[in-house]
Amino acid sequence: MADTWLPSLITATPQEGFELAITLSRRGVKYTQPDMDTLKQLRPEYANSADGLTAASQVIAINFQTVSAANNYWRG
Amino acid sequence: MADTWLPSLITATPQEGFELAITLSRRGVKYTQPDMDTLKQLRPEYANSADGLTAASQVIAINFQTVSAANNYWRG
Amino acid sequence: MADTWLPSLITATPQEGFELAITLSRRGVKYTQPDMDTLKQLRPEYANSADGLTAASQVIAINFQTVSAANNYWRG
Amino acid sequence: MADTWLPSLITATPQEGFELAITLSRRGVKYTQPDMDTLKQLRPEYANSADGLTAASQVIAINFQTVSAANNYWRG
Amino acid sequence: MADTWLPSLITATPQEGFELAITLSRRGVKYTQPDMDTLKQLRPEYANSADGLTAASQVIAINFQTVSAANNYWRG
Amino acid sequence: MADTWLPSLITATPQEGFELAITLSRRGVKYTQPDMDTLKQLRPEYANSADGLTAASQVIAINFQTVSAANNYWRG
Repeated sequence: MADTWLPSLITATPQEGFELAITLSRRGVKYTQPDMDTLKQLRPEYANSADGLTAASQVIAINFQTVSAANNYWRG
Repeated sequence: MADTWLPSLITATPQEGFELAITLSRRGVKYTQPDMDTLKQLRPEYANSADGLTAASQVIAINFQTVSAANNYWRG
Repeated sequence: MADTWLPSLITATPQEGFELAITLSRRGVKYTQPDMDTLKQLRPEYANSADGLTAASQVIAINFQTVSAANNYWRG
Repeated sequence: MADTWLPSLITATPQEGFELAITLSRRGVKYTQPDMDTLKQLRPEYANSADGLTAASQVIAINFQTVSAANNYWRG
Repeated sequence: MADTWLPSLITATPQEGFELAITLSRRGVKYTQPDMDTLKQLRPEYANSADGLTAASQVIAINFQTVSAANNYWRG
Repeated sequence: MADTWLPSLITATPQEGFELAITLSRRGVKYTQPDMDTLKQLRPEYANSADGLTAASQVIAINFQTVSAANNYWRG
């Protein structure tokens, strides 16, 4: 991927940090399966499955650990 | 999501921190599947499944690591 | 849950810390499924399953990381 | 469990630390299912399953993170 | 593997760090199954499966924690 | 296991650290199932399965976090 999508891990607020964690989680998927049509077809498989949603939330939680540490937990 | 739901990771007590970890875990699900009707339909799938509940507890545990570190473990 | 069940992450010994990690793991389940009858019915599903027990042990391990860090690993 | 099985996280060597991580992983199982006969019956279920062994190794890895940090990685 | 594929964990940018995390995740697979033909045959199994892609993204997230810490989160 | 297989977590390079992480992951399996014949029989079960390989890579990633921290990420 030639474009710049991750210039920094620093965000203004915890909420923006959480949203960056979601971006990281999705990028992990896209690097593994770059074909957008395949990804769209797979969406119902996890977005309508309790196990799939919990698994997605877990990856976000792991990435949020990284982003939170990078931002010193926005302690101010 | 335009509303502010995560202004800070700081909480007064460990218990409030644990409850924030639950909020983070649920938000990870809601960002992935924003449709509330679908989420309601899926609830019995994990809330009545031992594996589903253990998986939910694991996501909470990961988020609780983040919140606990943010609060210096409420060491006082 | 209105009652106070987590006043502190500090424990006198590593073993008490491990037991607190178990409490945290169970609370993660109870917050997700508060109905005690349902929880009792689900117990055989994981307590008699090798996969279920390993998964339970993993959640405890993650929470024990948090409690151990909070207590500076009881290095004393 | 009334007996003392975890007086300290400190070990003399990394290898003893790894073995303590195994003890922690097994204790997580035993606290969840204290009946030794049930545990013996379940053993073939994971010890003869590739997935079960990988899952067991993962719990050990998580506990080894804790024990290693407690010992400052035996940097000496 | 005799060749040098990991001379350093330091990268110029977070994005390069994320890509190194992907490399680490793939190397973990290749060390376990070095046969390239088998790996190619298995690719559709996870690249066309929602669960498989989420699992791949999780391994990347864990390795990205390591690379991010190594680089002090590129705080500058 | 009476022999010494883990005298130190310190390695000269990140790549040797990654290989030590693989050793740790395998030892976690061997402590749980010491019978070499059983382990050989199980090998095709995970080495020819996409899910099994991703799971193996995840355990390596967790152990690599430990080894990397022990070596201060080979920054020096």
